Amino acid sequence: MPLKVARRGQVPPFIVMDVLRAANEKAAAGERVLHLEVGQPGTPAPAGVRAAAARALEGQNLGYTDAFGITPLREAIARHCENSYGVQVSPGRVATTVGSSGGFLLSFLAAFEAGDRVALAAPGYPAYRNILEALGIEAVLLETELEHRFQPTPELLDSAGPLDGLIIASPSNPTGTMLGREEMAALVQWCESHDVRLISDEIYHGITFGERSVSALEFTDQAVVVNSFSKYFSMTGWRLGWLILPEDLLRSVECLAQNLFISPPSLSQAAAVAAFECHAELQEHLAGYARKRALLLEELPKAGFGQLAPADGAFYLYADVGHLTGDSEALCRQLLDETGVALTPGTDFDPIRGKHYLRFSFAAAEDDIAEAARRLIDWHERRRR
Amino acid sequence: MPLKVARRGQVPPFIVMDVLRAANEKAAAGERVLHLEVGQPGTPAPAGVRAAAARALEGQNLGYTDAFGITPLREAIARHCENSYGVQVSPGRVATTVGSSGGFLLSFLAAFEAGDRVALAAPGYPAYRNILEALGIEAVLLETELEHRFQPTPELLDSAGPLDGLIIASPSNPTGTMLGREEMAALVQWCESHDVRLISDEIYHGITFGERSVSALEFTDQAVVVNSFSKYFSMTGWRLGWLILPEDLLRSVECLAQNLFISPPSLSQAAAVAAFECHAELQEHLAGYARKRALLLEELPKAGFGQLAPADGAFYLYADVGHLTGDSEALCRQLLDETGVALTPGTDFDPIRGKHYLRFSFAAAEDDIAEAARRLIDWHERRRR
Repeated sequence: MPLKVARRGQVPPFIVMDVLRAANEKAAAGERVLHLEVGQPGTPAPAGVRAAAARALEGQNLGYTDAFGITPLREAIARHCENSYGVQVSPGRVATTVGSSGGFLLSFLAAFEAGDRVALAAPGYPAYRNILEALGIEAVLLETELEHRFQPTPELLDSAGPLDGLIIASPSNPTGTMLGREEMAALVQWCESHDVRLISDEIYHGITFGERSVSALEFTDQAVVVNSFSKYFSMTGWRLGWLILPEDLLRSVECLAQNLFISPPSLSQAAAVAAFECHAELQEHLAGYARKRALLLEELPKAGFGQLAPADGAFYLYADVGHLTGDSEALCRQLLDETGVALTPGTDFDPIRGKHYLRFSFAAAEDDIAEAARRLIDWHERRRR
Repeated sequence: MPLKVARRGQVPPFIVMDVLRAANEKAAAGERVLHLEVGQPGTPAPAGVRAAAARALEGQNLGYTDAFGITPLREAIARHCENSYGVQVSPGRVATTVGSSGGFLLSFLAAFEAGDRVALAAPGYPAYRNILEALGIEAVLLETELEHRFQPTPELLDSAGPLDGLIIASPSNPTGTMLGREEMAALVQWCESHDVRLISDEIYHGITFGERSVSALEFTDQAVVVNSFSKYFSMTGWRLGWLILPEDLLRSVECLAQNLFISPPSLSQAAAVAAFECHAELQEHLAGYARKRALLLEELPKAGFGQLAPADGAFYLYADVGHLTGDSEALCRQLLDETGVALTPGTDFDPIRGKHYLRFSFAAAEDDIAEAARRLIDWHERRRR
């Protein structure tokens, strides 16, 4: 008899991985492919981080650390919270994690039982619901609307049935939209009055183009705040994130982290301490994102992609393409085939309505973004003839 | 009302962490503490690995990789399997993971449903049962015996009730004992005839002192084989391990890995490719382990610790101290206090019978091992007066 393969392990793949595979095949065949599907900076870690890593390589054994990470890093993260939001956070509440991915896993296990119901926005990052479901937690999708910047509202929560948790993301992947101060305050208030654990994904903080992003930390010490060195700090492959934890989850998360991870990568930890001294270089990245965002906001409407969510932060534009297709995956394949521009279908983020949406990332190099815009405009003009 | 803290997240801590904390306090107070409690090499990664890491830092962006890792590393691991065991493994079956810890999490989720029953040896590595229980899987402890080298036997399995999985570890932590060829073959056979998924933890392979360690790969392609760069390759803090997967679990584990981890640390992957060229340096480590093991086997009986499990591999000696105490945690505290030697109580590995056992690690520096032995003999002689 064949051995069992667990049903809970059969989570859906990221559809964008199929796009990426097809894109890489085209590139291998010698074509120039423009990667507007990727969700990571095209830049390496800042020079100061790489220098700190080189020093640690020379001078340290790089064994296990405490499960929550080295003290200087936890202290630096606490200071970063104070500098960013004016909120005092004890370093004892900081847990460094194996990327924000590790932080999600730990906080979901510590906060929710199997069978619990946790709400989250559609469109949203698909790993949230896939991790929840692998852990036996019911993901309750909230169909968010453009008029609310694709963010959850108390009204949506009221109609979601009994809940144990809420995951929010501001700026959001895939929409780039943010919660304002009032909206964040209202969600925190709703969670507190309904005994619902709030998990606030703040991994795109620092990459904003107008208002600064608001943290749940400014309103409550009961939320789990998830952050990462991957995006603003440009350190995706270093697999390092952090949690700011409420006191009541600290011990659970620490014991889970010991057992599930032992510790985050030591070299990444030693290097990341220097990241908070690298703002000059990181602000240059930010200026680049702003230029690429402005370019796409200017050019995409000329290519027929004019219905874009407000791009408050992150490096994404979420485009309503309902006038072009009811099958965004087919449109992605067609665009890759006919223009060499790789995009992500909305179905990765919203299984139903995502059939009418595409995500444009402007994390790639500036030349590539400009060339992609030219090709998409050409494509659009050819189709109109 | 206070928010819920999930019961399943409330896994026990490693007791040795309390020993470590007390040891560090003593050391901070200026005393020389001898760390025979640590489960990691005292050596850094091999020079060739560190050089490869330095080159990657200079020349690569270090973004995300494929969920299963970079191709050259997967190919190098497949060759390593062939060189070690004479078994052909397709690189497509190799998944690199965030330490062996990540490999356990992924394989448990892919292979077992909530409510499944998975057998494992007591004494054994405590994270197995803690991860299983956090995922809602029942850990079925097999009370293994010295006469069977503290390894599971078909007879123990026959009396364990219905099972979905079996985890074995050879060499074992904490005992250092191994399964021979016949014993491994019998367990594989038992699993096949009972439709039980075998998970074989082989992270101490390469650290052996007589017979070479036997891999489940030599007998079946249906098992999940877990390995790591942490021990023989001396790369604990780099958080890099690997799985050799059966075909039927490949897709589940890949999708889970995308969602739960995105990818293992990129710098560690780039560096680890060089690890397989570093055997000369690693064989020196092995010679050091052999000397330290011989020293402890010679000296510990003079300190009253004469009942030791056969130390076939890994860097541990598991001592029966039933003649001294029924409370190994108290004995650990006493020994730390009176001699400055830090050890791990058996209760970390076996909640019941571990009260009569201690684990001695010989991963620390040779001078420290020798000094620890002297102090323990002194302590023993003082007590006899």
